[in-house]
Amino acid sequence: MQSTERVYLDHAATTPVDGGVLNDMLPYFSELFGNSSSQHSFGRQTANAVTAARDKMAVALGISPAAELYFTCGGTEADNLGIKGICLANVDRGRHVVISAIEHPAVIESANDLKKYGFEVTFVNPDGRGVISPKAIADAMRQDTVLVAAMSANNETGVIQPIADIYSEVKARGAYLWCDCVQSAGVLPLSRFPADGYALSAHKFYGPKGAGAACIKKGVRFIRIMSGGHQERGMRGGTLNTPAIIGMSHALSLSLSCAAEDGERIVRLRDEFERRVLSQIDGTAVNGGGERLPSVTNISFDGCDGQNIVFLLDLNGVACSTGAACSSGAASPSHVLSAMGLDESRVRSAVRFSFGRNNTAADVDFAVEAIKKVVRAIRG
Amino acid sequence: MQSTERVYLDHAATTPVDGGVLNDMLPYFSELFGNSSSQHSFGRQTANAVTAARDKMAVALGISPAAELYFTCGGTEADNLGIKGICLANVDRGRHVVISAIEHPAVIESANDLKKYGFEVTFVNPDGRGVISPKAIADAMRQDTVLVAAMSANNETGVIQPIADIYSEVKARGAYLWCDCVQSAGVLPLSRFPADGYALSAHKFYGPKGAGAACIKKGVRFIRIMSGGHQERGMRGGTLNTPAIIGMSHALSLSLSCAAEDGERIVRLRDEFERRVLSQIDGTAVNGGGERLPSVTNISFDGCDGQNIVFLLDLNGVACSTGAACSSGAASPSHVLSAMGLDESRVRSAVRFSFGRNNTAADVDFAVEAIKKVVRAIRG
Repeated sequence: MQSTERVYLDHAATTPVDGGVLNDMLPYFSELFGNSSSQHSFGRQTANAVTAARDKMAVALGISPAAELYFTCGGTEADNLGIKGICLANVDRGRHVVISAIEHPAVIESANDLKKYGFEVTFVNPDGRGVISPKAIADAMRQDTVLVAAMSANNETGVIQPIADIYSEVKARGAYLWCDCVQSAGVLPLSRFPADGYALSAHKFYGPKGAGAACIKKGVRFIRIMSGGHQERGMRGGTLNTPAIIGMSHALSLSLSCAAEDGERIVRLRDEFERRVLSQIDGTAVNGGGERLPSVTNISFDGCDGQNIVFLLDLNGVACSTGAACSSGAASPSHVLSAMGLDESRVRSAVRFSFGRNNTAADVDFAVEAIKKVVRAIRG
Repeated sequence: MQSTERVYLDHAATTPVDGGVLNDMLPYFSELFGNSSSQHSFGRQTANAVTAARDKMAVALGISPAAELYFTCGGTEADNLGIKGICLANVDRGRHVVISAIEHPAVIESANDLKKYGFEVTFVNPDGRGVISPKAIADAMRQDTVLVAAMSANNETGVIQPIADIYSEVKARGAYLWCDCVQSAGVLPLSRFPADGYALSAHKFYGPKGAGAACIKKGVRFIRIMSGGHQERGMRGGTLNTPAIIGMSHALSLSLSCAAEDGERIVRLRDEFERRVLSQIDGTAVNGGGERLPSVTNISFDGCDGQNIVFLLDLNGVACSTGAACSSGAASPSHVLSAMGLDESRVRSAVRFSFGRNNTAADVDFAVEAIKKVVRAIRG
């Protein structure tokens, strides 16, 4: 029987749009609807609103609104623009890319698709905790390495990567560093972020789906991926999605202003959840170590199939996942946990729980009891 | 002094989201917010809504929802996917593209950007009415032509193109036809549209910005442009923008169901507007002939600068444009009117007025009087 209560522990997949953010967006659908490229008052109204949103977001990120911020339709487009855009503009430097083996599919597939244009891709595995070592990145780099891609925090384990140290190694070797900040944006401070470019996605920080940004340092050469009109200084065609941009900007400021407080509350919930699961259920272990995002825990349950747990937890009112939603339904086990060197049974029995702003202590109680019941049922 | 009354005659640039469409979208921001790729109930709720929207849209278009409809973030992305995606997947056939000279920047720049990959691009001019002749397309095609791009209706003149005849010529020569239907979608019937693929943009038919579709015939080989997750059968990565997709689907059905009635009402307004401007202001001429969309008229005003007219009309409460919003602010004269062979003074004095669902006879009265006043002032 399906539970009527539902607890959402999949905030790494997506978050609800904040109520205040949605309110800010609403006038821009049917009333202030002008095309922000239009020259008349309808267009100027929205152009002004976009400019204000751009300025606010650039201030939050400590970058230039006019030279370093490119609005996209999401994190995937931002990763495509950064990785393919930079690599294809710099073929005179070489055709080699280094990426961490634990990247999101948007990064991995952008790199793989560069092979069509003669690029070689080297993958760098993390250590057993899921941490990419700056030295391993340095070792994988070559004379002809154009770009390194390493994410700020992993989406499956929440493990935070040593990006500042990776950036030093990359710069010492004259290449560019691209950083997928989709999971950390709104949680970790991004101001003066140590990378040549990075990707954000609004729907991960209580903003709308369909909005993202590529932040690319002034002076970094790149080509556009979305050919078209003169929008975004000619580097990204397409009518600007005014409500989504306004929502993203508001959501980012809101998240950053609440980050410390939210983070503390969420990490307490996550830690209490983790403590109880580990102490009350035998044969459990957390995947990923070192510094982690406050929201995420990835736990393996001996003798269980992760997909099975997710399925039965759903029937019992708890929403969680085996890994990235973008890979959900795929029969293959997590590439992240596999790259960490975990054995197959541990990888196959892993489940990700990701907490958010609206979760409560009661949610932890509810979820832990449901997990105990489900794991008991599976183990028989 | 700025008028307090404002009349919007720039529906070819963008349209307001229909109130009913927005209502349909609203629950999907903060309540039914799940990632449609997630395996739990939050994800299934939105996945089901996306499937329903996809099915409804596919029925309206007479195509397969599961094999021929790819959601994008807009018309520009759809044009990029169609043109670059098809060309780059079929280099074994050749590296030559034929495009009409009156295409939208999304099409022209997609074709131009293919030059980086060794493609040659041939532009085909329209006749003086703005019509692309199927024979001219045929003449421009070569043995190694992979793709022809010709739009369904031009965005500056509203001139409808003979796509069915162009398609016959293209198929007879074994190439693909890509059609930018951004201006005609929701106005002309699209069912069993004669092309191998075509692009739609929701915000042109009273749907939201940030939503579009590439409709690509089953069996047409293409590669993805947006590398990433498994979404859209692996052909377009990125979390689906649920509210925008739902809004687009609803808006398309609504537009098609009202197309005949709306079209008749709008064409009467447009024709009356045109009749009065031509008869009451000396030295005026309509640009573009043959069959036109009901909504658009493009008029040149002897001895005036189009930009100037747009600017002064804006101050007098009438919103219109010199051409595509995507090219607005550009100092260069319209590439569409230039390609039609109109002399430079006629091109530079051209203004586009595009009518929509909410315009009234009073708007025509208001606009015509404003235009008379403005043109009188400019001519001195």
